[in-house]
Amino acid sequence: MLETTAERVPYKQLFRRVVAIWRAVGFPETVAEIATTNLLLADMRGINSHGVARLPGYIRLVKQGRINTEARPFIEHETLSTARLNGDGGLGLWVGHLAQEIARKKARAAGSGWVAVNNSSHFGIAAAHTLPAAAEDMIGMSMTNASPLVAPAGAARPYWGTNPICVAMPCARHPHFVLDMATSAAANGKLEIAQRQGASIPHGWALDAGGLPTQDANALKAGGTLLPLGSSSHLGVHKGSGLGAWVDIMSGVLSGANYGQWVPPFVAFMQPMADLPGKGLGHFIGAWQIEAFLPAAEFKERMSHWIEGLKSLDRAPDCGEILIPGEPEHKAMMANTPVGPQIEKSLIEQLDNLSRELGVDI
Amino acid sequence: MLETTAERVPYKQLFRRVVAIWRAVGFPETVAEIATTNLLLADMRGINSHGVARLPGYIRLVKQGRINTEARPFIEHETLSTARLNGDGGLGLWVGHLAQEIARKKARAAGSGWVAVNNSSHFGIAAAHTLPAAAEDMIGMSMTNASPLVAPAGAARPYWGTNPICVAMPCARHPHFVLDMATSAAANGKLEIAQRQGASIPHGWALDAGGLPTQDANALKAGGTLLPLGSSSHLGVHKGSGLGAWVDIMSGVLSGANYGQWVPPFVAFMQPMADLPGKGLGHFIGAWQIEAFLPAAEFKERMSHWIEGLKSLDRAPDCGEILIPGEPEHKAMMANTPVGPQIEKSLIEQLDNLSRELGVDI
Repeated sequence: MLETTAERVPYKQLFRRVVAIWRAVGFPETVAEIATTNLLLADMRGINSHGVARLPGYIRLVKQGRINTEARPFIEHETLSTARLNGDGGLGLWVGHLAQEIARKKARAAGSGWVAVNNSSHFGIAAAHTLPAAAEDMIGMSMTNASPLVAPAGAARPYWGTNPICVAMPCARHPHFVLDMATSAAANGKLEIAQRQGASIPHGWALDAGGLPTQDANALKAGGTLLPLGSSSHLGVHKGSGLGAWVDIMSGVLSGANYGQWVPPFVAFMQPMADLPGKGLGHFIGAWQIEAFLPAAEFKERMSHWIEGLKSLDRAPDCGEILIPGEPEHKAMMANTPVGPQIEKSLIEQLDNLSRELGVDI
Repeated sequence: MLETTAERVPYKQLFRRVVAIWRAVGFPETVAEIATTNLLLADMRGINSHGVARLPGYIRLVKQGRINTEARPFIEHETLSTARLNGDGGLGLWVGHLAQEIARKKARAAGSGWVAVNNSSHFGIAAAHTLPAAAEDMIGMSMTNASPLVAPAGAARPYWGTNPICVAMPCARHPHFVLDMATSAAANGKLEIAQRQGASIPHGWALDAGGLPTQDANALKAGGTLLPLGSSSHLGVHKGSGLGAWVDIMSGVLSGANYGQWVPPFVAFMQPMADLPGKGLGHFIGAWQIEAFLPAAEFKERMSHWIEGLKSLDRAPDCGEILIPGEPEHKAMMANTPVGPQIEKSLIEQLDNLSRELGVDI
């Protein structure tokens, strides 16, 4: 993600600045702190596309009144192991956190907990809403729908977003297993990098406006779409398409949020559609308590044995090391912890300007 | 799947024959009937690779004592919304059914129900263990691990199976949404068809014994492996690999079953490995009650609206109709219901021989 010059910014300094920016546009302190923790988690884990780089976008939506700084999320319906949470138009980075808290509380009491969230907004990296479960000896799961950019199998127009699925769980002698994957073949951020480099993109990432395969990195801007994981019919695009659909249904249809082409776009220059079928953007967040199945110590021991078996397999000729899902992000986190995350200089300038504009001390 | 001559066999006739074969090797009547219902469901839905074609394989395992005809599955641990079920070495086609019954009972009481199953065997098509939930206004989910055939991203050797994920849910004016997908790029059945036709397979399905991409349909027999969904690093093979891993963990690590390379093979000519980390093969089966989130009628209406939006998208030039997951199988079911499923003649002969061998009236 960091193809231009970037510099290390100490975590605490960055944290304070981002909190101050949220506070300046009207968010309460707790909301600002939780949102900042989740946003910076992305940068710390090396997913800079979803970190502080997104802050100006959120602030633009706040200024348009499309994110409610005074939101008071409330449970609309619940059972022992489920809830439907209305995010009251609030900041997804924080609403997702509340949903995961409810899910864990229910999982402690009933063995598992599931929260379908409506009336929310972009919740950041999906892993932010599963890692708290893994830390508590649970298997966390999170999904969200997102701005429509991906064409379902057979379609030439987008119907859902890069709709991630995330699952996280603890191990005895290894970092958490954290699968955090977009259900598209490639994330939009990868196209943006190719655009800046003037490079072409591989076949299988995108269709042009006519629904034909393209290698043009600017395809999305010219009316094209992203392709689901699997990319083509002979490599199983209907599977990636089915996964994207599943995420849209759990996050949007089941929760009472919007779904399909009606999901409100993250970018401030596009307005939500008319005749919306639901409220805001949706998430589906939950947790299985490991002890509800097997003693947690035994599970974690078995996970480490599973990982050791995997790591000791013969490798393909082009592979240096077999990686566990979440391992690259864990390594980035370890590297960034003592020195702070790498932030692009152009982004630091943007934050400076945003701070001045909002009257925040730099 | 039906590349040779096939004929229609009336459902009831086929049902009686298959029940008689299970009975002849020692299964109680209830087990035989449930197993037959699930096996025939595959043929009725047009998934002949997982239907009656598998019966001789199951019978070989029974004869080797690797499936327990007198199994009495029991719950090893449970909470309000979870259970760990020991299948007692029984027939997966039936053990999976029991697990789904427990999951639905818990979902009715607690909003969701989740059963991790150990000590089981091949459970047939995953949809057999989600459709009962969809019929009861729930969202059914099922997974299973399977004989190791798939190489994790970066590996040259198999570590898990085609590990399917299935999710099924009801709609107001459309057939159920049923996503039932292997987490590999292609199922082994597709390679077998290419073998019989002497055809090559597309790049992205398999690696040869040296871990290099191959188009040889006989790659698996020559020590090669299947590739996860995504096929190559630039098309996201780590995502399909992560999904296969997730299924293995939920089905095997969490349940107390075997996992990774230790999953007992379905084929009778291969013996289970020594030093097994668990018991038999594992599944993970569950359900979310829709009313635990949103009124079921409202959910189903929203599902149909979601489907109508999807169906009305502009199509890619090579697409005749945008299909919903499960729609081809539903169409096959509708076509087969009045006349019975299509069964290959060579398979009918196999069933005749098996019947004679077991002293079953044909």
